[in-house]
Amino acid sequence: MIRRGWPALALALGLWMGPAMAQDVLEKRVFEGGAYQTRGGATIGNLRIGYQTMGRLNAEGTNAILICHFFSGNSHAFGRLSANGPAGYWDAIIGPGKPIDTDRYFVVSADTLVNVNVPDSATVTTGPASINPDTGRPYALTFPVVSMRDFVESQKRLLDSLGVKRLAMVAGPSNGGLQSIEWAAAYPGFIERVMPVIAADIDAWMQGWLDVWEAPIRLDPNWAEGNYYGQGREAPLRGLAEAWKIVTLHARDRLWAKQYDRGVPEGQDPARRIGDRFAIERWLDDAAAARARTSDANSFLYMVRANQLFLNEYPSFAAALSGGPARWLVVSAPTDRVFLAEGVREMVETLKGTGKQVETAELAGPLGHLNGVAAMAPVGDRIRAFLAQ
Amino acid sequence: MIRRGWPALALALGLWMGPAMAQDVLEKRVFEGGAYQTRGGATIGNLRIGYQTMGRLNAEGTNAILICHFFSGNSHAFGRLSANGPAGYWDAIIGPGKPIDTDRYFVVSADTLVNVNVPDSATVTTGPASINPDTGRPYALTFPVVSMRDFVESQKRLLDSLGVKRLAMVAGPSNGGLQSIEWAAAYPGFIERVMPVIAADIDAWMQGWLDVWEAPIRLDPNWAEGNYYGQGREAPLRGLAEAWKIVTLHARDRLWAKQYDRGVPEGQDPARRIGDRFAIERWLDDAAAARARTSDANSFLYMVRANQLFLNEYPSFAAALSGGPARWLVVSAPTDRVFLAEGVREMVETLKGTGKQVETAELAGPLGHLNGVAAMAPVGDRIRAFLAQ
Repeated sequence: MIRRGWPALALALGLWMGPAMAQDVLEKRVFEGGAYQTRGGATIGNLRIGYQTMGRLNAEGTNAILICHFFSGNSHAFGRLSANGPAGYWDAIIGPGKPIDTDRYFVVSADTLVNVNVPDSATVTTGPASINPDTGRPYALTFPVVSMRDFVESQKRLLDSLGVKRLAMVAGPSNGGLQSIEWAAAYPGFIERVMPVIAADIDAWMQGWLDVWEAPIRLDPNWAEGNYYGQGREAPLRGLAEAWKIVTLHARDRLWAKQYDRGVPEGQDPARRIGDRFAIERWLDDAAAARARTSDANSFLYMVRANQLFLNEYPSFAAALSGGPARWLVVSAPTDRVFLAEGVREMVETLKGTGKQVETAELAGPLGHLNGVAAMAPVGDRIRAFLAQ
Repeated sequence: MIRRGWPALALALGLWMGPAMAQDVLEKRVFEGGAYQTRGGATIGNLRIGYQTMGRLNAEGTNAILICHFFSGNSHAFGRLSANGPAGYWDAIIGPGKPIDTDRYFVVSADTLVNVNVPDSATVTTGPASINPDTGRPYALTFPVVSMRDFVESQKRLLDSLGVKRLAMVAGPSNGGLQSIEWAAAYPGFIERVMPVIAADIDAWMQGWLDVWEAPIRLDPNWAEGNYYGQGREAPLRGLAEAWKIVTLHARDRLWAKQYDRGVPEGQDPARRIGDRFAIERWLDDAAAARARTSDANSFLYMVRANQLFLNEYPSFAAALSGGPARWLVVSAPTDRVFLAEGVREMVETLKGTGKQVETAELAGPLGHLNGVAAMAPVGDRIRAFLAQ
């Protein structure tokens, strides 16, 4: 699964590869899943999702770990996809000798359906920007609604194709934590451990916030009811940027924002001109505009819906998890403004109420929700111990 | 200040008026402040704000209490403006014999500048929807930026006109709490007590959220850079509704939202149709659309800016309050998602650091931030004791 920097030469010379392993480049692959029927009953002609792996699957197919990505992420949770490219978002805890040790485990991560990173060539997904084979044109809003359970089903097909018979753990941050829980509900016998990070039940409060996130897209005239693909049309980048702005701020915390307290950019005078900006607004504008250029508005809407449909096939969170795997490590950030501490506490109590062994770990740092993506190293030992149980 | 239901007849018959006092109707009055120079240096030709009072000012002018309103509110904090109309938002704690006792205190509340409730005939304000006397047309975005301090200055003129020489207390929820703090900073010798409710410093985090609140307005094509007043033009009601939706959700809490958990309105199927809605979304859509019809989009933008400019004339919160009044009662809601508990704690510590006597009280209830508007009755005795000190 690993494409090495200069493997032929190294093997020929019998060189010791130790430190040079850090230069290993992972291959991003594509899973062709064929026709797929969604949980809502619609058919997608050809299911394609990207994925990456590290480590080696044992003969029994039982040492696999699945990592699920966050709302705006993709399969790049670990390793590098090019020699000088960035490391994956959880690279601090995944790799040879790391807490999720790829010398022992076969680690898989896949792009979700309706992934937002459509313009990124390293992301492979099937969603509203994909070509509908029946028409030869992008689906746009004719793409069927998919749920968190559909994310699980598409990944289950991938794991089956790889020969995985059991998951030692399913884990992920935020939307990835929700996928982990949905996995635990759908395939309890297939999974030994669950580690949802910065995630909890999607209640009406969160359904409402997800709606707030997406609302700017629908307001942008360029959105045109989703029909913005094709020559001569402009993508709704202003609306999409405003949507990302909400996510960007929501996923951080006031401690992070303190660096912009009372800041005013050069040339701006918000106390006198209504159109002028404060420093925090300028930062958000720039960050959101950049994110809009590398993502797709319709996919954002479908991703929101998939999140709103978390555990939608069950009458309650408790009912969904009643028969799930026994061992849980729930990792949360007390300053998370998306999945509030109260919601995490409720989830932990509910899991304990269904007889699970539940450990908890808390993430420090100024980033709020994003501590679960960028600040995982300090809980590495907890993860190592959890996997050793 | 009180216009009674049938005063002439009652007085003529010498009837005992006790219980019938509950039927008293307050008069909404208009303060004509003349030309006003903003803190930013611009001039507003004729300053007009609405106000209401209850109780009687003593001969020394020292028994007055000023109540400042929240972001979307107006002067209607107490009493009724018509015989069968609703009571003011803090009527539970303001009135004869109530914690803020109008048998002892002369209570005043005024509409702010740039008040959002422009279509409401009971709200009188000066803002972007007002007619510019120089042009005979609405100011729109030519209206000067006003700050929280400008709110204070306009109210100071009103109090001067009423003969008020000292405030026994200045208080209010949310934006009203910010005004109270700004008052304390601007006129320390004029004020004995300060009671900010569900309010704390406006840091960069909150400046960012205020920007998120207003962003949908700017995305609505009908907004037209603020030039939507006048015949043949449509107000940006869709954008304004989305703005109110954010405020509406942000000002509540997940406990409130539980009533909509897993709810789907009749005829809706969000698991199959991307345009369909969950119950919480439908509720938010309806509430926000209704609020948009009774408010003005440009005024929303100016109100956001006034909040972002909280204490903008001081280098820091501590510096602003170093010389302020000594007695504070800080009332907060632990489940407030707008002004977070951490921010309130910081403010209390800062106030104590400047030598203030600071008491705190916490509000319970499922409404989050809105507990500071709708659930004040349980802290009534604390307010009574605070005023008795």
